Amino acid sequence: MTRALTITDARLASGATGGLRAVDGTITEMGSTVVPQPGDEHLDAAGLTMVPPLVNGHTHASMTLLRGYGDDLALMEWLQTRIWPAEGRLTPEHVYWGARLAAVEMIRSGTLRFWDMYFHMHEVARAVVDAGLRASVSQVILEIPDAPPDARPEAAEEGLARLAGAGPLVTPCLGPHAIYTVSAPSLRLVAELSERHDVPVHIHLAETRGEVDDCVREHGLRPAAYLDSLGLLTHRTVLAHGVHLDDAELAIVAERGATLVTCPVSNMKLAVGGTFRYPTAHAAGCAIGIGTDGAASNNSLDLLQDIKVLALLQKHAAVDPAALPATDAWAIATGAMAPRLGATPLAVGEPADLLLLDLDVPELLLAPLDAALVYSATGAVVDTAIVDGRVLMRSRIIEGEDEVRARAAEAAVVVRGEH
Amino acid sequence: MTRALTITDARLASGATGGLRAVDGTITEMGSTVVPQPGDEHLDAAGLTMVPPLVNGHTHASMTLLRGYGDDLALMEWLQTRIWPAEGRLTPEHVYWGARLAAVEMIRSGTLRFWDMYFHMHEVARAVVDAGLRASVSQVILEIPDAPPDARPEAAEEGLARLAGAGPLVTPCLGPHAIYTVSAPSLRLVAELSERHDVPVHIHLAETRGEVDDCVREHGLRPAAYLDSLGLLTHRTVLAHGVHLDDAELAIVAERGATLVTCPVSNMKLAVGGTFRYPTAHAAGCAIGIGTDGAASNNSLDLLQDIKVLALLQKHAAVDPAALPATDAWAIATGAMAPRLGATPLAVGEPADLLLLDLDVPELLLAPLDAALVYSATGAVVDTAIVDGRVLMRSRIIEGEDEVRARAAEAAVVVRGEH
Repeated sequence: MTRALTITDARLASGATGGLRAVDGTITEMGSTVVPQPGDEHLDAAGLTMVPPLVNGHTHASMTLLRGYGDDLALMEWLQTRIWPAEGRLTPEHVYWGARLAAVEMIRSGTLRFWDMYFHMHEVARAVVDAGLRASVSQVILEIPDAPPDARPEAAEEGLARLAGAGPLVTPCLGPHAIYTVSAPSLRLVAELSERHDVPVHIHLAETRGEVDDCVREHGLRPAAYLDSLGLLTHRTVLAHGVHLDDAELAIVAERGATLVTCPVSNMKLAVGGTFRYPTAHAAGCAIGIGTDGAASNNSLDLLQDIKVLALLQKHAAVDPAALPATDAWAIATGAMAPRLGATPLAVGEPADLLLLDLDVPELLLAPLDAALVYSATGAVVDTAIVDGRVLMRSRIIEGEDEVRARAAEAAVVVRGEH
Repeated sequence: MTRALTITDARLASGATGGLRAVDGTITEMGSTVVPQPGDEHLDAAGLTMVPPLVNGHTHASMTLLRGYGDDLALMEWLQTRIWPAEGRLTPEHVYWGARLAAVEMIRSGTLRFWDMYFHMHEVARAVVDAGLRASVSQVILEIPDAPPDARPEAAEEGLARLAGAGPLVTPCLGPHAIYTVSAPSLRLVAELSERHDVPVHIHLAETRGEVDDCVREHGLRPAAYLDSLGLLTHRTVLAHGVHLDDAELAIVAERGATLVTCPVSNMKLAVGGTFRYPTAHAAGCAIGIGTDGAASNNSLDLLQDIKVLALLQKHAAVDPAALPATDAWAIATGAMAPRLGATPLAVGEPADLLLLDLDVPELLLAPLDAALVYSATGAVVDTAIVDGRVLMRSRIIEGEDEVRARAAEAAVVVRGEH
């Protein structure tokens, strides 16, 4: 039995009015003449603006459970006294409910595809499927004392296979945590597995200056060059942060076709001591996306807020109000500047993933669309969210939200040791 | 006839449940045992959190009409090709409707007192009164070609008198635009008028490095010292921006009891080339508030977004995640760190100005109150806004909003030359 959705009377970015029809999750028709067929689910989108969804290129969804748990502490104190002890208490069930809460927040703010890395990733995959989102879910590899057994390098291939069973909404990835927490032989193994299974690699890189200094001291190479020497800088690689990459590193990232994901709010909140070098990265031809990072270091998953901060920070750093204009910021937010992040255009033959926005609020009166979205809007403008032709939110109502909140709250109390 | 409002069952910052009663706009009773009297207007605030309102220490309310009109241009191109020609088309009626639109946005995001400076300020005062907000409204003084006649120094005293007639919601102020647009004799006149009438002075200061360099070249003094030499740095003075003040200037600002209002989003968006030196200003004992600046350079009047950016920017600049913690950011937002901005505490005998927030949203789950408000919330959490014991918004409904939007939209089309 086919499953069809028809949207009519939406406002398009062009200013025209139109809609689309999707059959079994794929857009089959677009334009002003689309009409619902008998049996279609029909959304009248009068007054709403249809745009592609946002892509969160780097997060740790389940860290919603740790939001506000130790803000405003120095980094090592925060990690040692709050985050690590809490993560030691995490069960797979906690990870599931934390990710479900994150999914609710992302749907409410227009993010319908995200790149995740954490522990017990099969539970994140289950949450993604149950929430109806799309995600690139990384089998984490982490060689530190007390890391869970499934984070061992030798467990990676099995973990990948398990993620592959989660269905079409989940893209399995390898997630070596960072160059300072995974050994060179294990990073080489990751490179080999990535090539053999043709799966993306999601890794933190050059987040702090200390990481760069340590890398140079231990390996005689800066982080991107070190990754490249291990065969791990390819078109399949997604690099989170990249704050402290120098010109030569940005050039090689571009040359290899790897993707950079900047996390401006997290970088500022954790005070990583630098600014992502967007003008150089962009000029070098790097693919660029944006991520919120986890809710513990943001403390929001609302990308519409974060793209404003990204644009502000880049103007501030460049001392140039023309730096990173709204059009580019919006392109970054929707994944249009980073093809490997998996965004798809609103077009016939593509997946029916989209947002309907209610921009009819006083805060947005008369502003051009891009500027309104980047500088004035928050996630609160998202009225309707659709993935694979399925309506995940309509009029800001998400089915099952109450249970998710209750179960996530229970989990958070345990994880924080507050019970 | 007395006018009484009783609020019951609100959640307080302490975690307790309580309420208050206000008679003729003044709080007469507070606590968990408050009950409505016969004839009272009664708000059941179950599930809502009662907090003081936010104070916007520097804005140009009517510039809502110019939001998104020339974003991402270099500063002088923006001013010369967009803002100044548009301002040349402004009528008093436009100023009124622009300010009414700003009032709607401010109420929706919890700002119930603001400091304003623009043209035709009696129209801003009328808008403030009609909207039911409180504002410190500055009679602007501006000596540039084509400035409107009421901006001439010799018109200042009459303008002040006109503002004084607007009633108790409006605090008349003098608004010499800046040290580079108002002559030394006129600034001396402002100092004299401020003292004679005991009214505040609201001025832009040290926003760009160019302003500092010009001041040193022309007057042999840096901006704060120059103002002080004219008798214009007193406890009545409110300094907007203050980005490029050095240690000695911050010390004298503190010594004179003047107030600094930082505008982090505007400063970053216009790329003024520096960061407000909060740690030094705070250590020197300066009174510190926050402003959005006008909607044309922000492009939002939502202070709950701006205090997050303030905290992020200060952590980033200090390379210290413990810099400007949430508690301090919230104090700045509510005017608690700048007594001269006119905020009043929620206490018996004080004005009944307050917000009821709906924090029961997934994005705020389990975060401590200060951190939730500063790092995770936006203006969308404001459910109810009350000034002088009058309910300006309830369940996010503001009476007359539709007319304001329609009239502001008409005005904007004319001002932008788009008709």
